[in-house]
Amino acid sequence: MTATDVSGLTQLGAATGLPDSPETALLEKVPAGHAGTLYVVRFTAPEFTSICPMTGQPDFAHIVIDYVPKDWLVESKSLKLYLHSFRNHGAFHEDCTLDIAKRLVGLLDPVWLRIGAYWYPRGGIPIDVFWQTGAAPGGVWIPDQGVAPYRGRG
Amino acid sequence: MTATDVSGLTQLGAATGLPDSPETALLEKVPAGHAGTLYVVRFTAPEFTSICPMTGQPDFAHIVIDYVPKDWLVESKSLKLYLHSFRNHGAFHEDCTLDIAKRLVGLLDPVWLRIGAYWYPRGGIPIDVFWQTGAAPGGVWIPDQGVAPYRGRG
Amino acid sequence: MTATDVSGLTQLGAATGLPDSPETALLEKVPAGHAGTLYVVRFTAPEFTSICPMTGQPDFAHIVIDYVPKDWLVESKSLKLYLHSFRNHGAFHEDCTLDIAKRLVGLLDPVWLRIGAYWYPRGGIPIDVFWQTGAAPGGVWIPDQGVAPYRGRG
Amino acid sequence: MTATDVSGLTQLGAATGLPDSPETALLEKVPAGHAGTLYVVRFTAPEFTSICPMTGQPDFAHIVIDYVPKDWLVESKSLKLYLHSFRNHGAFHEDCTLDIAKRLVGLLDPVWLRIGAYWYPRGGIPIDVFWQTGAAPGGVWIPDQGVAPYRGRG
Amino acid sequence: MTATDVSGLTQLGAATGLPDSPETALLEKVPAGHAGTLYVVRFTAPEFTSICPMTGQPDFAHIVIDYVPKDWLVESKSLKLYLHSFRNHGAFHEDCTLDIAKRLVGLLDPVWLRIGAYWYPRGGIPIDVFWQTGAAPGGVWIPDQGVAPYRGRG
Amino acid sequence: MTATDVSGLTQLGAATGLPDSPETALLEKVPAGHAGTLYVVRFTAPEFTSICPMTGQPDFAHIVIDYVPKDWLVESKSLKLYLHSFRNHGAFHEDCTLDIAKRLVGLLDPVWLRIGAYWYPRGGIPIDVFWQTGAAPGGVWIPDQGVAPYRGRG
Amino acid sequence: MTATDVSGLTQLGAATGLPDSPETALLEKVPAGHAGTLYVVRFTAPEFTSICPMTGQPDFAHIVIDYVPKDWLVESKSLKLYLHSFRNHGAFHEDCTLDIAKRLVGLLDPVWLRIGAYWYPRGGIPIDVFWQTGAAPGGVWIPDQGVAPYRGRG
Amino acid sequence: MTATDVSGLTQLGAATGLPDSPETALLEKVPAGHAGTLYVVRFTAPEFTSICPMTGQPDFAHIVIDYVPKDWLVESKSLKLYLHSFRNHGAFHEDCTLDIAKRLVGLLDPVWLRIGAYWYPRGGIPIDVFWQTGAAPGGVWIPDQGVAPYRGRG
Amino acid sequence: MTATDVSGLTQLGAATGLPDSPETALLEKVPAGHAGTLYVVRFTAPEFTSICPMTGQPDFAHIVIDYVPKDWLVESKSLKLYLHSFRNHGAFHEDCTLDIAKRLVGLLDPVWLRIGAYWYPRGGIPIDVFWQTGAAPGGVWIPDQGVAPYRGRG
Amino acid sequence: MTATDVSGLTQLGAATGLPDSPETALLEKVPAGHAGTLYVVRFTAPEFTSICPMTGQPDFAHIVIDYVPKDWLVESKSLKLYLHSFRNHGAFHEDCTLDIAKRLVGLLDPVWLRIGAYWYPRGGIPIDVFWQTGAAPGGVWIPDQGVAPYRGRG
Ligand SMILES: [Ca+2]
Ligand SMILES: [Ca+2]
Ligand SMILES: [Ca+2]
Ligand SMILES: [Ca+2]
Ligand SMILES: [Ca+2]
Ligand SMILES: [Ca+2]
Ligand SMILES: [Ca+2]
Ligand SMILES: [Ca+2]
Ligand SMILES: [Ca+2]
Ligand SMILES: [Ca+2]
Ligand SMILES: [Ca+2]
Ligand SMILES: [Ca+2]
Ligand SMILES: [Ca+2]
Ligand SMILES: [Ca+2]
Ligand SMILES: [Ca+2]
Ligand SMILES: [Ca+2]
Repeated sequence: MTATDVSGLTQLGAATGLPDSPETALLEKVPAGHAGTLYVVRFTAPEFTSICPMTGQPDFAHIVIDYVPKDWLVESKSLKLYLHSFRNHGAFHEDCTLDIAKRLVGLLDPVWLRIGAYWYPRGGIPIDVFWQTGAAPGGVWIPDQGVAPYRGRG
Repeated sequence: MTATDVSGLTQLGAATGLPDSPETALLEKVPAGHAGTLYVVRFTAPEFTSICPMTGQPDFAHIVIDYVPKDWLVESKSLKLYLHSFRNHGAFHEDCTLDIAKRLVGLLDPVWLRIGAYWYPRGGIPIDVFWQTGAAPGGVWIPDQGVAPYRGRG
Repeated sequence: MTATDVSGLTQLGAATGLPDSPETALLEKVPAGHAGTLYVVRFTAPEFTSICPMTGQPDFAHIVIDYVPKDWLVESKSLKLYLHSFRNHGAFHEDCTLDIAKRLVGLLDPVWLRIGAYWYPRGGIPIDVFWQTGAAPGGVWIPDQGVAPYRGRG
Repeated sequence: MTATDVSGLTQLGAATGLPDSPETALLEKVPAGHAGTLYVVRFTAPEFTSICPMTGQPDFAHIVIDYVPKDWLVESKSLKLYLHSFRNHGAFHEDCTLDIAKRLVGLLDPVWLRIGAYWYPRGGIPIDVFWQTGAAPGGVWIPDQGVAPYRGRG
Repeated sequence: MTATDVSGLTQLGAATGLPDSPETALLEKVPAGHAGTLYVVRFTAPEFTSICPMTGQPDFAHIVIDYVPKDWLVESKSLKLYLHSFRNHGAFHEDCTLDIAKRLVGLLDPVWLRIGAYWYPRGGIPIDVFWQTGAAPGGVWIPDQGVAPYRGRG
Repeated sequence: MTATDVSGLTQLGAATGLPDSPETALLEKVPAGHAGTLYVVRFTAPEFTSICPMTGQPDFAHIVIDYVPKDWLVESKSLKLYLHSFRNHGAFHEDCTLDIAKRLVGLLDPVWLRIGAYWYPRGGIPIDVFWQTGAAPGGVWIPDQGVAPYRGRG
Repeated sequence: MTATDVSGLTQLGAATGLPDSPETALLEKVPAGHAGTLYVVRFTAPEFTSICPMTGQPDFAHIVIDYVPKDWLVESKSLKLYLHSFRNHGAFHEDCTLDIAKRLVGLLDPVWLRIGAYWYPRGGIPIDVFWQTGAAPGGVWIPDQGVAPYRGRG
Repeated sequence: MTATDVSGLTQLGAATGLPDSPETALLEKVPAGHAGTLYVVRFTAPEFTSICPMTGQPDFAHIVIDYVPKDWLVESKSLKLYLHSFRNHGAFHEDCTLDIAKRLVGLLDPVWLRIGAYWYPRGGIPIDVFWQTGAAPGGVWIPDQGVAPYRGRG
Repeated sequence: MTATDVSGLTQLGAATGLPDSPETALLEKVPAGHAGTLYVVRFTAPEFTSICPMTGQPDFAHIVIDYVPKDWLVESKSLKLYLHSFRNHGAFHEDCTLDIAKRLVGLLDPVWLRIGAYWYPRGGIPIDVFWQTGAAPGGVWIPDQGVAPYRGRG
Repeated sequence: MTATDVSGLTQLGAATGLPDSPETALLEKVPAGHAGTLYVVRFTAPEFTSICPMTGQPDFAHIVIDYVPKDWLVESKSLKLYLHSFRNHGAFHEDCTLDIAKRLVGLLDPVWLRIGAYWYPRGGIPIDVFWQTGAAPGGVWIPDQGVAPYRGRG
């Protein structure tokens, strides 16, 4: 049976506060236990919030991240803290979504990664943002994210 | 078999424009065919729109009306035209909902009437307004309106 | 074990055409096998169609009938044929719904009966009609009909 | 902690064939472990089938049984075998449903029992049958069965 | 037609920042336009977030508020700002929910009010909190909130 | 603003192992912050598992608990650990469900409590168990649990 | 972190009325913050309404727009105002849908764009219109729009 | 803005009866306003009914038609009348479905067309029929029809 | 208009008993009315039951069959009788599913055929079996079967 | 008709305890009855639980396995026991998922296999893991797993 090596981590199992900003949040990684095997890891984060840079009011999003690891896995507690670090960060929906994805790409150098960000409506019209690093690698199974479309009322 | 008397109507079967305002819209009625029988008629109007009196921007609502007729039924084409007459009318959600209901009560003098207005979100928080003329009459079957609650995203 | 007496039926198991009208349709009954027991029988008829008396165009409805038998059950094949007999019959939604219910009440003299008729939209606004013979008898279990509300699009 | 007494059972843990008929099926009971406490036990049996007495063709139903035990619980494996014993039994929907419920009432002498039988459509119109032994006892929580209504297609 | 009096408001139509805390948030009211009529106003706020007082980590909730106005309506923009003011406030789920409801009761002195708070899971088990000021007033129609139960996965 | 007193707790914020059995699990309580206010707290635990006492195989359930506190709230981390302590405990569905509820009643002496346990199917037929301490107290709002009924396949 | 340049905008943050027509509505753009990155932006607009050119009656639609930016993003407030400008504009469903899409293509010169317009039924039969500028660019992730099909009643 | 030319139509805006048969129904077309643009038009017709040629009993279907126009659009009122003309027409499900599609192909000479016919069950087993004129043209967006599969009961 | 030739059938319109076994069931075919046209016919059979060869207990499945006819259509009444003939037949899920499909392939020699069998759970884990005769023919539209995955409870 | 050879099995039909660990669990196979036919077998296991190696607390998952057999089928009772053997096994989500899949690959040497593991949330963010042995073989029908995405609340 496989046992992931967590010896390099600093936050897991320790008391941790809320990071002040995405820049100062510590995003950690562990060696992928099945190196050479191409599989998908999906994180679903329905608790994302940031600040609108134009109005100073809170924004909310449901975010789903899929990636195919190469040598590293993102450690999930540090990912949670990183996402929470946007709580007082001002950014447009498109910028915020791509910044998260590119930070993960920089950390993990994955075979492939994509992000879907499903933002709560403002002015009656929600915005979704979808990005991937490129065409998905052949022979890897990547299910649809299947998030329900926005329907207003009725 | 019962045949509703439509001889007093002026708009049904005729070419009709869009009324300018709720005040000028002609809401018509026909004699109820089963006088003395207590039953419920439900109209579901997912196409309602009016104007926000503070911002001048359009508002939208999904509206459901239930009533128990006494002597009169509302004619459905005139109801459609009446609802469409709010298209350029400015009113708050609470006022608009109750004004519709009370206009129908004035026209029909029904045994009982209720309205549920499910407004599209503004600022992230939708408002619903629910009113009925009083406790429902005994022995009448009035199913739940069953409109899905607002859920944001995810 | 109980065996319903079907000896008085004329249509069950025989070749039967489509009745010309509700007036000429033969609605049959069989003795209720559990006389003295108060239970509910529900028929769900999603295939109802009649003719609009104003325009001559077809109308459609999803109809649900609940009743508590006294001495008689309606025979289900004859009920199907009776409902199909409205195919070329012109009537308003309210009239049509109550006529069906009252025909059944006249045939069966049930302890209690109700009908829910969920009509397809015309002009964007569907009409539902709900009627029951009176307050439901005490101690009888009558589940909600649970038909989904009309939602337009989205 | 409570331990139900299963010492009187004959079928549980033994190899058992399919009973030939409802009459010969052995329906067993165990003493209720919380005597004096009024609670509800719900069985959901989506795998019920019997034979139509008019045509010899199979009928199918989704059946839900709720009861409030007095001194006895029905043993669930024997209930499964009892329900499967209708496989070659011919009966009308109404008769079949009430026969099942009354057999359980005779075995268990419960405080209260109800049955909901949701039959698959024949001729386009499904029949549901609902029965309970009487008004539910006060102070007992009995949730709605919540089975989705039949919707045809679309 | 009814026109709500908004002359006393200070935040509506003005640029407004995010309040620092619930204590400093300005919750405003307007005179109810249909005084003497008993109706329900429902707000659905799927974008609520506060801080866990034990761990300092963010908490999230979907909140629904129903009330029957007496003389006052809560102004919806100020309600939005008030709810957002919990963003950096630490409180347990039960406390937070009741504090919101009681602040509204103090402001509006409504005929009746209830709150349902549907918190996102921590440790696998979400908490919901439900409170109302007392039995609902007779003859007022108050639909179920109908928020879907938590289902984990699958 | 209200602040719950957690000073008497021993497990919250500390490293805690999995209790060996329900008997040895430490279920803790905190003083209710809004004493005298009648409200409902709902826990949804979709991760419950125990052992079948007849076969030694695992059983699974989705469990929902509603209660109206008097002087005490159950501490949610200790509740999680208590529920997980059934992992190696053998009990019938009915016994297991009522034992959980009565342990909570003994700990909290609540105004009212109910439990709904939705067990995964065995032999094709799932069992649900519903219990409450008695009729719900007047004037308290207790929403339906709304758990979807079992549907088999299709 | 990325910060979108909004210095060229004229409507964002300013008081804006409802444009008189699509021709006079001001649709604005901002430079895309992640130039060279191929991603999808989705707008969901469930509040669209225009006028039927044959009858003068209102039409309604749920509209979803997906695009892959090249150098420009559409500014979302101006998009909202542009869509609302069809409120008094008469056009057939097919024309209206394609006019919106082509206006955006002219403004943004995107890598790729598609529109799905889900119109509310008229005469019982809703019309949907689907268009894209051509085959989607390779390596870009474009989720299904997933809008539920129209189902009538039942 | 585009304006479809309707000058050649004979039924739109005029009083029209129900055609006697598919052969005599007048199916009309208008010039496509965006000639040279490849887009999809979808009609959803949940109100289709014909006659079973073996038994003379009514059949029902939910029908969805997708097509890519070349030079012509089908006029929607005439399509509705054409579909209603099957009301007294006897045909098997497979024949009826393909006849409708081929009539449209003959009228419009479209770039591409497909039909999905979802028939209501007979004998417990519904039949669906799916046909298209050939492989869909490259670069055209054709969403799934997404009609829910038949599920019987439960 | 097309009229299928049914002159060779022996069971349609005649009284028919339940076949004793799949081997003795008479599966009939009729000439395909649109020879040369590649379309899909889908049968949905939610009422399938057979016997477990290890335990003698009933098994249940929801079965969906898609095929592209060459020269023959299967007659639907004979298909119903054939499926019902498995009622007393013992077979593993995988064998039973493929035997049905291969019997149809032998009868019809279709261009292409697939079967999806969604078996009810045994021991908590349902089995689904999916087979097709080979890659689907080019240019034919074959929608997803869309059967909901098994979800256990909650 | 096909009859699978079960003569080599040791656990089926015998009393079996819960295996102590994945290593000691006996996973058995039977010869595939339709050798040379490429079809898919899907197992859905909503009752999976293991132990978090960092905290010692239980983890839960909904697991779906699809495979195309070559010469062997996995025997379903032994698969159930194997999955239950993880009950006291500590492993990370990614490791656990791939270990299950690779054990099956080692046992069966299938043409192709994939696994989807949908883990219950920890810290608000569920992890899903998706793996397949490589690109699916051509001409085999492999439906989407269709498991609903995690949605949090509301
Ligand atoms: Ca909004
Ligand atoms: Ca909003
Ligand atoms: Ca949400
Ligand atoms: Ca309409
Ligand atoms: Ca809508
Ligand atoms: Ca049928
Ligand atoms: Ca329908
Ligand atoms: Ca959790
Ligand atoms: Ca689950
Ligand atoms: Ca089972
Ligand atoms: Ca089913
Ligand atoms: Ca319509
Ligand atoms: Ca049928
Ligand atoms: Ca079912
Ligand atoms: Ca099971
Ligand atoms: Ca969590």
